[in-house]
Amino acid sequence: MSEFRQNVTTGEWVIISKERATRPEDFKCTLSKDRENLSDYDENCPFCKGNEHKATQKTHQIGDDHNWTIRVFPNKYAALSTKANPQRTSNGMHLKAGGYGMAEVIVESPLHNANPARMSAHHIVDVLCAYKERYISIAADHNINIINIFRNHGPTAGASLNHPHSQIIGSMVSTPAINEQINYARRATNTWGTCVYCDLIKFEIESHERIILETEHFVALSPYASRSPFETRIYPKRHQSQYCEISDDEMQDLAVILKTVLGKLYVCLDNPDYNYIIRSMTTKDGEVQYYHWYIVIIPKISQVAGFEIGSGIFINTAEPEMCTQALREASEPEATSGE
Amino acid sequence: MSEFRQNVTTGEWVIISKERATRPEDFKCTLSKDRENLSDYDENCPFCKGNEHKATQKTHQIGDDHNWTIRVFPNKYAALSTKANPQRTSNGMHLKAGGYGMAEVIVESPLHNANPARMSAHHIVDVLCAYKERYISIAADHNINIINIFRNHGPTAGASLNHPHSQIIGSMVSTPAINEQINYARRATNTWGTCVYCDLIKFEIESHERIILETEHFVALSPYASRSPFETRIYPKRHQSQYCEISDDEMQDLAVILKTVLGKLYVCLDNPDYNYIIRSMTTKDGEVQYYHWYIVIIPKISQVAGFEIGSGIFINTAEPEMCTQALREASEPEATSGE
Repeated sequence: MSEFRQNVTTGEWVIISKERATRPEDFKCTLSKDRENLSDYDENCPFCKGNEHKATQKTHQIGDDHNWTIRVFPNKYAALSTKANPQRTSNGMHLKAGGYGMAEVIVESPLHNANPARMSAHHIVDVLCAYKERYISIAADHNINIINIFRNHGPTAGASLNHPHSQIIGSMVSTPAINEQINYARRATNTWGTCVYCDLIKFEIESHERIILETEHFVALSPYASRSPFETRIYPKRHQSQYCEISDDEMQDLAVILKTVLGKLYVCLDNPDYNYIIRSMTTKDGEVQYYHWYIVIIPKISQVAGFEIGSGIFINTAEPEMCTQALREASEPEATSGE
Repeated sequence: MSEFRQNVTTGEWVIISKERATRPEDFKCTLSKDRENLSDYDENCPFCKGNEHKATQKTHQIGDDHNWTIRVFPNKYAALSTKANPQRTSNGMHLKAGGYGMAEVIVESPLHNANPARMSAHHIVDVLCAYKERYISIAADHNINIINIFRNHGPTAGASLNHPHSQIIGSMVSTPAINEQINYARRATNTWGTCVYCDLIKFEIESHERIILETEHFVALSPYASRSPFETRIYPKRHQSQYCEISDDEMQDLAVILKTVLGKLYVCLDNPDYNYIIRSMTTKDGEVQYYHWYIVIIPKISQVAGFEIGSGIFINTAEPEMCTQALREASEPEATSGE
């Protein structure tokens, strides 16, 4: 029989329904595995080493022009731009504004066929450093209100290019859905006097039921009210509301836990498509007691259909505790060299 | 250059970005057209006439057992059930409850290969009547708080069976996202004294810029802040907050406008996958001044990826006014007989 579970940090209800598939094997990726056979260079790829002229002007780079490991530049097809006019204007009954913001691509490796699940932790540190550098730089623009760092892995997760990359988008507006999540956490702090995320992390570590992995500074877990199979979250243990508050020590630790979790998902689900997102407080509010940044990794297994769109209620056919168990037991793929 | 547009009924911002595709042809469905070649009977289909024994016990039917046109029964793999215990219980820090609710399938035709875009308006009236009958019946259960009627058309829209069907799900909980939409509309009514949806409908009819079609009782339009290409909404002109308030006259009219819009989308986008959803007020609150039910039709063209999940901001690559124009000009497919 299915059950409703509530996300204690947002108030959202999900349905955990095990009426259909129930074993970890049922969720393995069955997509084309073309990306397993990619070579390390594609002459048409604007993100490959040697093709830098096909991309826009870099905003950040780790390494020099002939030997870079990470490269960041504005998205060629950016949905937002600092050239737009951020002024709100009315259009009859409606409100509009220029599409003001920044949209950048973080190329995670010079190699076309690299995969974060198989990169060294050392290399992932560079990726996380680039995120932080760009976050701070974009947040300095006073028109920006919310910054999203995310990674679309594979075509069904929305990636249009195979070359490993993440994106960072700073937007001048946020939406009622995000505002409501933040307000919910603020109300919890008003009630209990503590950060609901900090409370949750302590509770989950103590119960251990849904903990996949714990390091000195971070914890990876299957959320009690996961929206979809194998949803995984990585929380910093120390209270911090924005990603840019992460310390150097914590960054080293995050690289290890992120790489390990991506590796376990790679093995357990057979290199699935996925999205990961760093959720962080709005930049204008900055460091607050009631919000806590985290990474959510969402393997692209289930489809959002009419019921989810209409009701906002997600039906998850995998019990989170089963996913925890499967990920604990999963090994990691062999690391590739040269990254 | 892109622009932000705000949905006046919910406060949601979307990005209308025309940096990539811009012509109606760019949004045509390129999926497998296997469903164009379906026959009118499939021996394995539990929804086909003659296979009624493969489905669960009917809750509603139009016509008799040997000559039905519409048949409704509980979903065999229902995510919710009235056998569950609706009581909230705590699970440490978390809250859970049994998956109490109803999930029914509305089979829209005895024919396996029927398509609402090609059905007669007369037949669609029967479908809409079945929706209303089941809505009223499900709403009578005092544990139910929200009822969703929706249709998943095609595999990428989440349909697992080709046989034409809709679904109705009554849930005992609603989510913060839906509650916030309702609250937003309520605040608008507190401010202006009128229903924001009624105001919007009047404004759009007067401006005519985004009106696809208007009938005596309904209007079909491209929303100013559409989340994705060719999103279309059908609003009743008369104020009514729940679908079950629709009158017989209005139902005749809705069948015509729904059939016409689905037909235009069929021609314009080449039989696209889509979801449609009837959004209605929560059943416990019922008839209110500040909410207004409507149908939203979402062709499955764009993908929800990391940015949309993370920020709640949708990037729409098609200008709504261009979609309006394309749908106004689109013809309708030939009707099939025998339905």
